[in-house]
Amino acid sequence: MTFASAGTLGVVPGRRGELLAHLTRRSDVLGQIGCLAYEVGVSDDDPDTVFVVELWESSDAHQASLTLPEVQASIAAAQPLLSGDFGGFRFNVVGSPLRD
Amino acid sequence: MTFASAGTLGVVPGRRGELLAHLTRRSDVLGQIGCLAYEVGVSDDDPDTVFVVELWESSDAHQASLTLPEVQASIAAAQPLLSGDFGGFRFNVVGSPLRD
Repeated sequence: MTFASAGTLGVVPGRRGELLAHLTRRSDVLGQIGCLAYEVGVSDDDPDTVFVVELWESSDAHQASLTLPEVQASIAAAQPLLSGDFGGFRFNVVGSPLRD
Repeated sequence: MTFASAGTLGVVPGRRGELLAHLTRRSDVLGQIGCLAYEVGVSDDDPDTVFVVELWESSDAHQASLTLPEVQASIAAAQPLLSGDFGGFRFNVVGSPLRD
């Protein structure tokens, strides 16, 4: 069952560009381990936040990704850019009006 | 620029199944007006909420969709199933590690 995560990442003021560059750096491994979509963005209403929507083949694929050395290194590298404010939600996809 | 919406819809207790059926009913018009993804789901942690992640070709495409008779009728039909609690966030996508 497809798994979705929609998250907000609070950013240390002035460092949003660095976090965006970090999170959008091309990663072929993500696709190989079941990541279907990973969309990173911003909003004028909230300049110290980065937004991420992720779709994964399953909740297990998402969980497994967090144990990969590449992913752990990426999370560690992002830490100095994060304010510590996190938000969002996760859910199991049951369907879409765009497909049967 | 791709536009993303991640939302939570509070549901009248006992009517989540109806709202899921409503939101996932096949709609060819959505794809024709710039909807790239519309994923609907649930979470065991929150049984009276339905979760939706949407991706659109642009913020304008999303806004324009809300004026369509089909979409307005769909929103009206969902009203009796909604508790009135809404959450989530919207953002402009700047990139993805899955593509250059």
